[in-house]
Amino acid sequence: MLESVIRELLIKVVGGKWFKDDPESLVSYSYDATPLYQAMPDGVIFPESTQQVSDIVKICSKHRIPVITRGAGSNLCGGTIPLQGGLVVVMTRMNKLLEIDSDNLTATFQTGLNTKQFHLAVERTGLFYPPDPSSMIICTMGGNIALGAGGLRGLKYGTTKDYVLGLEAVLPDGSILRTGGKLVKDAAGYDLTRLLVGSGGTLAILTEATVKLIPKPSYRKAMVAVYDDLHAAARTVSNIIAHHIFPCTLEFMDQPTLQVVEDFAKIGLPVHAKAMLAIEQDGNADDVERDLKQLEEICLASGAVQLNIAKTPEEGAKVMEARRSALAALSRLRPTTILEDATVPRSKIADMVLEVQRIAQKYDVQICTFGHAGDGNLHPTAMTDARDPEEIHRVEQAFAEIFEVAIAMGGTITGEHGVGIVKAPYLEWKVGEAGIKMMKSIKDAIDPHQIMNPGKLFAETRKRIIYQDRTEAVGRTTTQDEEIQTP
Amino acid sequence: MLESVIRELLIKVVGGKWFKDDPESLVSYSYDATPLYQAMPDGVIFPESTQQVSDIVKICSKHRIPVITRGAGSNLCGGTIPLQGGLVVVMTRMNKLLEIDSDNLTATFQTGLNTKQFHLAVERTGLFYPPDPSSMIICTMGGNIALGAGGLRGLKYGTTKDYVLGLEAVLPDGSILRTGGKLVKDAAGYDLTRLLVGSGGTLAILTEATVKLIPKPSYRKAMVAVYDDLHAAARTVSNIIAHHIFPCTLEFMDQPTLQVVEDFAKIGLPVHAKAMLAIEQDGNADDVERDLKQLEEICLASGAVQLNIAKTPEEGAKVMEARRSALAALSRLRPTTILEDATVPRSKIADMVLEVQRIAQKYDVQICTFGHAGDGNLHPTAMTDARDPEEIHRVEQAFAEIFEVAIAMGGTITGEHGVGIVKAPYLEWKVGEAGIKMMKSIKDAIDPHQIMNPGKLFAETRKRIIYQDRTEAVGRTTTQDEEIQTP
Repeated sequence: MLESVIRELLIKVVGGKWFKDDPESLVSYSYDATPLYQAMPDGVIFPESTQQVSDIVKICSKHRIPVITRGAGSNLCGGTIPLQGGLVVVMTRMNKLLEIDSDNLTATFQTGLNTKQFHLAVERTGLFYPPDPSSMIICTMGGNIALGAGGLRGLKYGTTKDYVLGLEAVLPDGSILRTGGKLVKDAAGYDLTRLLVGSGGTLAILTEATVKLIPKPSYRKAMVAVYDDLHAAARTVSNIIAHHIFPCTLEFMDQPTLQVVEDFAKIGLPVHAKAMLAIEQDGNADDVERDLKQLEEICLASGAVQLNIAKTPEEGAKVMEARRSALAALSRLRPTTILEDATVPRSKIADMVLEVQRIAQKYDVQICTFGHAGDGNLHPTAMTDARDPEEIHRVEQAFAEIFEVAIAMGGTITGEHGVGIVKAPYLEWKVGEAGIKMMKSIKDAIDPHQIMNPGKLFAETRKRIIYQDRTEAVGRTTTQDEEIQTP
Repeated sequence: MLESVIRELLIKVVGGKWFKDDPESLVSYSYDATPLYQAMPDGVIFPESTQQVSDIVKICSKHRIPVITRGAGSNLCGGTIPLQGGLVVVMTRMNKLLEIDSDNLTATFQTGLNTKQFHLAVERTGLFYPPDPSSMIICTMGGNIALGAGGLRGLKYGTTKDYVLGLEAVLPDGSILRTGGKLVKDAAGYDLTRLLVGSGGTLAILTEATVKLIPKPSYRKAMVAVYDDLHAAARTVSNIIAHHIFPCTLEFMDQPTLQVVEDFAKIGLPVHAKAMLAIEQDGNADDVERDLKQLEEICLASGAVQLNIAKTPEEGAKVMEARRSALAALSRLRPTTILEDATVPRSKIADMVLEVQRIAQKYDVQICTFGHAGDGNLHPTAMTDARDPEEIHRVEQAFAEIFEVAIAMGGTITGEHGVGIVKAPYLEWKVGEAGIKMMKSIKDAIDPHQIMNPGKLFAETRKRIIYQDRTEAVGRTTTQDEEIQTP
């Protein structure tokens, strides 16, 4: 609980209605979409303006209260767990779309804006914002920016990182920073915009953003390629890139994923196939048709046993929606679903799929694999049970080996989900001692009192829920502290 | 001069042949392509490996010797002037192209590699590296990365910033950092790659880089649109963007620039026109022809009085080469040529061109304007004489007002040249007090002893050559220290 004097100060900023520290509210903001992690905050606050955010941070800075910024909490890296207690700052009231500038092809908004709502508003003007994380119906643009979210269209269009042109942010001392602008080129000093993108709430609270838009493609067409050999599906991906074709979407699902997604979405997926690729291209009609024709040839030459071309855009959209539902569908199978985000150079995708299978067998755990094959970004997903510590241990060993293999292939521990708590123990594997040291020195310089989302990126201890499924655990949690062994 | 014990240590690292501190060498590395600035280093060293760079930096760190990293020295921001003496580290021996990976569409090279040579090597494999600074015949990839270089193709393809996927860098303590990789997606911690891109040698020495390549466009076509009204040319740019066409190049030249470039290049430019746009599109032939047709219509509707479509790619290339020669051509006019880099949101390009004219008249200075109109990135260029302090003062006042106007329009003080010394006094105008403070805290954290390119970005004092043309000044410089007034 916060001291009553601090409570009063915070209530003075936002009004009594927008500060909460009743048990139900604290529990509600003690977890996010990440399995296995939970910790209770001391308060929850809902600012409505940048000035309020600044005032809140000044109070927290003075009194050394941890500040955990949160949008929808849909992240999968434990990025918004209030590990050390403190104040959860919920940005969802700051959800205004401030401007769509069709002369400069930019949009400016408050960061609590919902991603899907933003997409719809942009597309109504004939423009397009490509990054489309699978959680876009619930997530916020601020969360996307804070964690560098990707999505299904990354292969052709890149991720959130590639679209943020400018930010407004409240720094740990409460000062307000403005970076970038409606500029496609800016070489004025260190790239603070890009430093904040993906910083996961550890350096600042992002309050406003300006992003780049592009013209909305006039035409799109999807197809599905079915394989009875997993390796042939992966080989197809390499062959598509080798032919210099960049579909807007090039998604991979293995057999267990197909089965589960079909049970959930009921759109006629080939549930007995070993693997499926869902491919979509957009652009002008001629180019799309030309690419589709070439894609068909490549799929068949690479070993596809069946091709289904979507007859309508709606039919194509259904396949992509089904793919987006993979996590939701898989999480119905067993009590706990842990989705990972290992990424390899795209030429290694076939090897990586096979390695995931080998590792799952080795540790005797159930891992489905799907993901953004064209980017080399796979989401191996374990169906497990948090109540079984022995099994969870095997799952953790399996994921550690998956990260190790990804890095050995020149890959990374996270392509688009961020580090948060979950990947903190593995960060040094990717960035090395010099990288960790440099990141820590930046963190210490900008947030000397360590109030911004403490325990993330460089976590030394963590709280975990074990022995319990999360849905059961909420409200009556057994937590335990344990050292993270940084390998 | 360096102490003899330090000299010996450095010579032990690279061998006697590759360390120089004779007067001719010191003078040769006392300046770069930026007018008005010169300062003598204490030594010049030419490493051939990352390990040598690390050993050199360790010596300099221990003995607090400034380290100024330099490629070809073609920058225009005073970025490689050894303001506080110290050791100039010349990277041109580290010029190996290590790999072109056509499966992952990446290239890896040592940073001293020449940009044009790199382009040619990449294009021989059927791939393409778009960033094409006008200095590419002489500049190095490391310089491009250190300053976030742009070029003529920025509108469609972005700048150097958008292509760097990974770096190897030697940090101020001599440790070797590796960031990123052959990965199109990476969310593992702070984006150190992007922090180093554009950091201008103030945080680390960049030794190796991995960049993204794209397929080489199969077809390209150029055209020239001629205007007897400057505003109509600028309006054309806005109209092209409004039609959602992104030519790979969309360059603007005003009448004085046209005249001078034609005298230099002799390719038949319309020297009596008020302005000219040089436009090029690339891609597959059908798309290019369709865009060209639409571009013709837009140019005519926006007030072009004449259109010339290049009959061959070579004819188009000639126009672009002529445009690239603008700085060289203009510098023949008067003893000193100062080229600036103000950038505005692309919708403001017409207003900005007019403002530059107004400001030139106000201060009675000769300013030509050309640049990357499609990006909002103009290069107003003053023809002046460094021997006339009164005129130089007026030029400086004019540029200060140009920066002020650019920022008032939502623009920036540099689009692609970097801050270095020249723009340091104006940086706070763009990034604000919070931005300067944040950049300084990053600098202090990573380079606590301030050995990496001191006096850049945050310069408090500067040495200037005045009263002298640079070609005369070399070797017999009158320098004077003066306070920079940070506005």
